[in-house]
Amino acid sequence: MSVSTLATTQSICSPLPVLGRDVTVPLVTGGEVTYAALDYAASAPALQRVWDDVAAYAPYYGSVHRGAGYLSQLSTDLFENARRTVGEFLDCRDDDQVVFTRSTTDSLNLLAAALPSDCRVFVFETEHHAALLPWRDAHVTHLDAPRSHAEAVATLERALADRDPHGPALVCVTGASNVTGELWPVRELAAAAHAHGARIVLDAAQLAPHHPVSVRELDVDWVAFSGHKLYAPFGSGVLAGRSDWLREAEPYLAGGGASRKVTRRTDGGVDVEWHDTAARHEAGSPNVIGAYSIASACKALTEAGFDTLVARERYLVLRVREGLAEVPEVRVLSLFGDDAPRVGVISFVVEGWNSSHFAAALSAEYGIGVRDGLFCAHPLVRTLLGSEPQTQGECGAPEAAPGEKSLNAIRVSFGAGTPDEHVERFVGAVKELVGSGARWNYRTEDGRCVPDTAFPGTASPDTSA
Amino acid sequence: MSVSTLATTQSICSPLPVLGRDVTVPLVTGGEVTYAALDYAASAPALQRVWDDVAAYAPYYGSVHRGAGYLSQLSTDLFENARRTVGEFLDCRDDDQVVFTRSTTDSLNLLAAALPSDCRVFVFETEHHAALLPWRDAHVTHLDAPRSHAEAVATLERALADRDPHGPALVCVTGASNVTGELWPVRELAAAAHAHGARIVLDAAQLAPHHPVSVRELDVDWVAFSGHKLYAPFGSGVLAGRSDWLREAEPYLAGGGASRKVTRRTDGGVDVEWHDTAARHEAGSPNVIGAYSIASACKALTEAGFDTLVARERYLVLRVREGLAEVPEVRVLSLFGDDAPRVGVISFVVEGWNSSHFAAALSAEYGIGVRDGLFCAHPLVRTLLGSEPQTQGECGAPEAAPGEKSLNAIRVSFGAGTPDEHVERFVGAVKELVGSGARWNYRTEDGRCVPDTAFPGTASPDTSA
Repeated sequence: MSVSTLATTQSICSPLPVLGRDVTVPLVTGGEVTYAALDYAASAPALQRVWDDVAAYAPYYGSVHRGAGYLSQLSTDLFENARRTVGEFLDCRDDDQVVFTRSTTDSLNLLAAALPSDCRVFVFETEHHAALLPWRDAHVTHLDAPRSHAEAVATLERALADRDPHGPALVCVTGASNVTGELWPVRELAAAAHAHGARIVLDAAQLAPHHPVSVRELDVDWVAFSGHKLYAPFGSGVLAGRSDWLREAEPYLAGGGASRKVTRRTDGGVDVEWHDTAARHEAGSPNVIGAYSIASACKALTEAGFDTLVARERYLVLRVREGLAEVPEVRVLSLFGDDAPRVGVISFVVEGWNSSHFAAALSAEYGIGVRDGLFCAHPLVRTLLGSEPQTQGECGAPEAAPGEKSLNAIRVSFGAGTPDEHVERFVGAVKELVGSGARWNYRTEDGRCVPDTAFPGTASPDTSA
Repeated sequence: MSVSTLATTQSICSPLPVLGRDVTVPLVTGGEVTYAALDYAASAPALQRVWDDVAAYAPYYGSVHRGAGYLSQLSTDLFENARRTVGEFLDCRDDDQVVFTRSTTDSLNLLAAALPSDCRVFVFETEHHAALLPWRDAHVTHLDAPRSHAEAVATLERALADRDPHGPALVCVTGASNVTGELWPVRELAAAAHAHGARIVLDAAQLAPHHPVSVRELDVDWVAFSGHKLYAPFGSGVLAGRSDWLREAEPYLAGGGASRKVTRRTDGGVDVEWHDTAARHEAGSPNVIGAYSIASACKALTEAGFDTLVARERYLVLRVREGLAEVPEVRVLSLFGDDAPRVGVISFVVEGWNSSHFAAALSAEYGIGVRDGLFCAHPLVRTLLGSEPQTQGECGAPEAAPGEKSLNAIRVSFGAGTPDEHVERFVGAVKELVGSGARWNYRTEDGRCVPDTAFPGTASPDTSA
């Protein structure tokens, strides 16, 4: 489908209002522009609706659970209703549990801590580190990067067939890659897992903000996602799904809220009865505002309608893809090929450019915020770059030395709050930078590639608090 | 010191403005009153200043760490500056680490996961479950409830002297009890621990909102506290202190941000290099707003001045103590006796009253929010009540059957945002309830004691989202 065919779609729907849509940032070349937040895959801005809901609730915030006061009971209802709303958003089964965590990373670490003993875990090397690394005590089989949906399913089936079929097994798979944005064949992988007696958890961190996720339709056992990528950046995430492993596991955190009854024994020890509901893994005072913000985002996305959101995002993806395709120096990274369906996450390298340098110029000269680095998916990016990136830097970028060849990549990502102008500005900036070069000089400072002079104007707000 | 001597103190300083200070709630008896939030020990309202800071920052929120955009770099600075501010607030040593967690519970679970092997843990049975329970794999010695500061120190010294002096050991102690509000002799316990080659972690969840905490002066190895009790209810907490055990431990969460480099081995496995900074235990996108809100609260409390805050709170404590002392049916719970210094946390029982019933009446008939139950410190409350409370309820209250005898307690707690009027209303309400009885009938519903008719008026805001 070309851009022109999609033009109607584009014109009939607007981006959802997000916080910061009018924020301007200084350019190193002088003047200010509205900030183009194109790093949604890391953290998306809050939906205005989410912020408004949080702001309306905040004065009514109270201690939850056993508080006897009016606002405590109101807050408890609000927290438990948030759990229900999230369960509906994910189309969970009636007996699924919805556990509030702090992020997808936390959710998958919780599930890892709840694995039955002798559980085998199967995970593609292409996963984000949050999905690749938490399975510490389990026996993990790392699967090679597939080059098609069919190969992904075949690879998994082969690995599952090789295992001892009697023990418990878990497959962990992403719904949409945080590097390429490509969708994975979740339903088919779930079918393969179940056919071989394994369970499957869906890392929906990059999928849920862009596509409807139905636990029932996909037939996955668990799903994990983060509030901060779903337009609700208030420190909460979700693990939802089957309750049996969760109920049988040791509590993820030990403390109040998870414990039903604690008794000192006559021998001096302590006996504990733990809850077997979601509270079992939610010890400590819950992040009520975080949970509520996720519920608010779920409602806002549902009300906006994923059909509309998906159609609009498809237009933006196409616009970026077509724009980048016009620049021969740009190579877009892909596992499954150019025609693979994807969400609004696109990574690329530019011939002759260090990616950190390119990303720094997009920010300093155009007010565009993208990300450079390895995106917490080192093995995948290595596979896609076809080289050893030799990074010694943080999770993400190696040291940025302007002018060196690409050792890492640039990622542009967007979503429900992205106006056309941001995407148009990005495409124009890429063409201009590749065609004419950067207009400024850059240097490495504290592992960041930055302009070699200060920005005119000052950061707002003051970040010193 | 009597109330009259303190009257000057009281009149020269006002409560700090908090969110919700003008919120009204319906009374079951008709009409509305401003809500008296007296459950600060569970969760305190946000300081207006904290909310204003969060609201000013929210439009500038961006992905932290390797985001190349202007707002990503601003947000990264803000997050790392928050870490520095918290370290200053706690008067940390230069080489201490400040790790952002989600709560005190999370902080202590992190430390528990970072204990060296064969570490012995010493903890009084009087601790909150968050401090009592996380030491799962360690050999834990539970110490009997002491009845004086001297007995606490002697009990700890005796236990430490009995242990094998060569292995690692950790003492975990609260700064202020979440049940009685009484201060513990932290400096003396720290000296005892160090004299016996043990380390000590301070649970400052109830101390930090009320008193200055100096890691250096108290000479504790770690300190943990929660944002939601420190007027910053945005889902973050803190563990600060010595870096060696933290640096040597396995990462608390495995995922991006904690991993410096991840490589697929030729045999198919995966090698990981982990960070050895605070990031090691902060995998996943950090809760920037949560961390920033804590830093904002630290600054606000420091600027208000703890001398003033402590003096004002001392007045409020005295006012409540004197008011309750005039009601012979009220018994205030205490480990260390009436004259023990304490923060604004007071638990009590009322002869002839079920505590849940009493707390429900305070809410429904006076608009006062307190807490009933066992306060996630079951062994301590049992010791203080001198009976087996036989609770089968949640962490906190047993089933509330109006008219039965006390099986649990009532807790009133307050802090920097509490106006005199809330405390006066509370004292008056206790006297009236004890003298004249409740004016309404109550029943148990879903484990809560509630009026047997609906409140006139509606909850605001709508909690259904």
